[in-house]
Amino acid sequence: MNTAGKVIKCKAAVLWGLKQPFSIEDVEVAPPKAHEIRLKILATGICHTDDNAVTGNLYTPFPVILGHEATGIVESIGEGVTTVKPGDKVIPLSISHCGKCSSCINTNGNFCMEMLLNTDQGVRSDGTTRFTCKGKPVYHFLKFSSFTEYTVTSEFLVTKIDAAAPPEKVCLIGCAFSTGYGAALNAAKVTPGSTCAVFGLGGIGLSVIMGCKAAGASRIIGIDINPRKFERAMAAGATECINPKDYTKPISEVLKDMTDNSVGYTFEAIGHHETMVDALASCHPSHGISVIIGILPSSKMLTYDPMLLLTGRTWKGCFLGGWKLKDDFPKLVSDFMAKKFDLDQLITHVLPINKINEGFDLLNNGECIRTILTF
Amino acid sequence: MNTAGKVIKCKAAVLWGLKQPFSIEDVEVAPPKAHEIRLKILATGICHTDDNAVTGNLYTPFPVILGHEATGIVESIGEGVTTVKPGDKVIPLSISHCGKCSSCINTNGNFCMEMLLNTDQGVRSDGTTRFTCKGKPVYHFLKFSSFTEYTVTSEFLVTKIDAAAPPEKVCLIGCAFSTGYGAALNAAKVTPGSTCAVFGLGGIGLSVIMGCKAAGASRIIGIDINPRKFERAMAAGATECINPKDYTKPISEVLKDMTDNSVGYTFEAIGHHETMVDALASCHPSHGISVIIGILPSSKMLTYDPMLLLTGRTWKGCFLGGWKLKDDFPKLVSDFMAKKFDLDQLITHVLPINKINEGFDLLNNGECIRTILTF
Ligand SMILES: NC(=O)c1ccc[n+]([C@@H]2O[C@H](COP(=O)([O-])OP(=O)(O)OC[C@H]3O[C@@H](n4cnc5c(N)ncnc54)[C@H](O)[C@@H]3O)[C@@H](O)[C@H]2O)c1
Ligand SMILES: NC(=O)c1ccc[n+]([C@@H]2O[C@H](COP(=O)([O-])OP(=O)(O)OC[C@H]3O[C@@H](n4cnc5c(N)ncnc54)[C@H](O)[C@@H]3O)[C@@H](O)[C@H]2O)c1
Ligand SMILES: [Zn+2]
Ligand SMILES: [Zn+2]
Ligand SMILES: [Zn+2]
Ligand SMILES: [Zn+2]
Repeated sequence: MNTAGKVIKCKAAVLWGLKQPFSIEDVEVAPPKAHEIRLKILATGICHTDDNAVTGNLYTPFPVILGHEATGIVESIGEGVTTVKPGDKVIPLSISHCGKCSSCINTNGNFCMEMLLNTDQGVRSDGTTRFTCKGKPVYHFLKFSSFTEYTVTSEFLVTKIDAAAPPEKVCLIGCAFSTGYGAALNAAKVTPGSTCAVFGLGGIGLSVIMGCKAAGASRIIGIDINPRKFERAMAAGATECINPKDYTKPISEVLKDMTDNSVGYTFEAIGHHETMVDALASCHPSHGISVIIGILPSSKMLTYDPMLLLTGRTWKGCFLGGWKLKDDFPKLVSDFMAKKFDLDQLITHVLPINKINEGFDLLNNGECIRTILTF
Repeated sequence: MNTAGKVIKCKAAVLWGLKQPFSIEDVEVAPPKAHEIRLKILATGICHTDDNAVTGNLYTPFPVILGHEATGIVESIGEGVTTVKPGDKVIPLSISHCGKCSSCINTNGNFCMEMLLNTDQGVRSDGTTRFTCKGKPVYHFLKFSSFTEYTVTSEFLVTKIDAAAPPEKVCLIGCAFSTGYGAALNAAKVTPGSTCAVFGLGGIGLSVIMGCKAAGASRIIGIDINPRKFERAMAAGATECINPKDYTKPISEVLKDMTDNSVGYTFEAIGHHETMVDALASCHPSHGISVIIGILPSSKMLTYDPMLLLTGRTWKGCFLGGWKLKDDFPKLVSDFMAKKFDLDQLITHVLPINKINEGFDLLNNGECIRTILTF
């Protein structure tokens, strides 16, 4: 049946309000407008950033369909779309790439200036949404929404990938894997033989570990208050794991003692104020580099002693690993197909979309690394 | 007359307490102990860091002899000294170089770990001082002290330079020039064709400008609330200068508009909380690098929105420009002798040491860039 140009009725996990469970609803998905495409979602991961929207740490209007780490197939295209066609397998991009702004033309960084112009209000560029449920408009999330069988986005917010790539694995290239792997390779530029410390051993932290290992780090120390995360972290490449709760000293002192003061790179993959400053203090005073990946609740400020920087440290942040998403995601998919890294290390659970609440419980109880939802 | 091994009586500018004027006193300078050397000071600059000690922004015990940006001649050496000999022309080093610690063996950064072990209490490594005045011990400053005809320091805290170098100019390589020039070349690694913004146009800021120019920056914007600083800044290489007081918008917005959002590098050479955050916000959100050089009063904390880093910015600090002082200062002196840069651009006043209070007035009234004291 050709659905192009018609409204599609399908299942989606709708979040009706803050801190509520998801409810599986019948929704209508409008056809794509000019430069938009409609996708059939094949698989999607649950990221902590989705949970930040549930708890209110990240603002979103309600009702909303969350989800941003996904693989989809183009079902139909709107007027003027030239860059993808129905049947293409794609990964959505959480950062636009206008190709013309001061960010896009620079070889470093990836934060397209279009992102600054429109704070995300859950709507498409015409100010409306493509979802309705029970007669009400339902908002998009991060200009996308993947906890739904079908979704609509812009042709410029997807990138085409190898048709043979397994969707329930490469969806992780849409967020967790790229974010962590790129933080090590692009932001920190970890050097061979170095010592790295990774704060937070969830999907992002484990991907950082994989990046540090790929860069040739000889010592990779995982840090988490949940020791159930250690086994997977070791499998991903950590050389040892520690729990701050096992020590009375500040973690920066523990790491200094453990490594004879040789931690070159630290990463914060949690999203807490204190661990961001701890990670900074834990890298070498004279040449250490610390990367913030975790996201603080909107407009929360960070307070620290600038003497930590004055001695020579570098502090930086990155979104989505600093990759130029449009060009780099297809390459990462190819690297995955060439077995340069193993995404199974990040996947602990696979659930059908109607068990989404179970997936979020696994995340909040610290029982999973990544849960993949299938359709 | 051979003074080696004897106490030397000479003139020094002693600071008896917080916020007092300097008083020129007769002091006794003890002979150097093991691994120490006694220097005759030839010239010394007045740096804002000295003023921080006068005002209490930087802790020092009293009475003290300040001064750290200097040129001297080795008058005599203590037991076991092998690296310099009487008659050598040297520049003191405000950062030690043990040559063995995790900082010294790394190619990046210069903050020797010995600096962390001993917070400066104004005494030499044996816990005593080499100065007495009116029967009282007088403390050293930053392990040195140059507002005096003679001083004692460690052989490891000086570096030998070209005997032909003019002392009243190359003393600036001991602090201001190296600090600013290195912040641009070593810390920020300014690229050719880039746009830079320098907050604060004192001795440090002007040296940053010289570094940006040497790195090939095509646009260098000087920022100061004192427009009397603009002429010298332009002469040093600024392509334009602005006064934040002339605008109602935040300076980061002013710079964004002026440059079509292309400020790649920013430098804070003032030492204020707000301007450190302003400088960070003023560099490009996706690939900008901001360097803190200014020093906040001890233990003052900095508060900022971490979203400024998450979009991709880099924030770092450096002491003394990140140079490996012992090896790099003699090379900078050679570069000066080869006319690769011009230190006269930084020198607005030359005064005899007994006019030191006039020199500090010039600094505090914003009338000088650098004042050099001679003996
Ligand atoms: N910058 C980006 O582009 C980007 C992209 C995706 C996710 N994120 C952010 O990265 C962070 C991590 O995401 P995730 O999906 O891996 O989350 P996750 O919940 O799977 O993992 C977080 C881990 O941190 C641990 N933790 C919590 N408090 C801790 C503490 N005080 N000390 C040590 N460990 C602690 C938890 O036990 C957990 O294992 C979140 O803030 C998320 O919003 C950022
Ligand atoms: N990191 C290091 O190794 C190092 C070395 C030397 C000096 N320093 C520090 O660098 C800073 C600058 O030193 P300096 O000797 O050049 O000082 P300076 O007093 O000569 O220059 C500071 C300049 O900042 C300007 N200024 C003050 N408030 C301002 C504001 N709000 N906005 C814009 N401009 C403002 C002043 O008008 C002045 O021109 C000081 O904090 C000093 O302690 C650091
Ligand atoms: Zn762009
Ligand atoms: Zn995510
Ligand atoms: Zn050292
Ligand atoms: Zn100085």
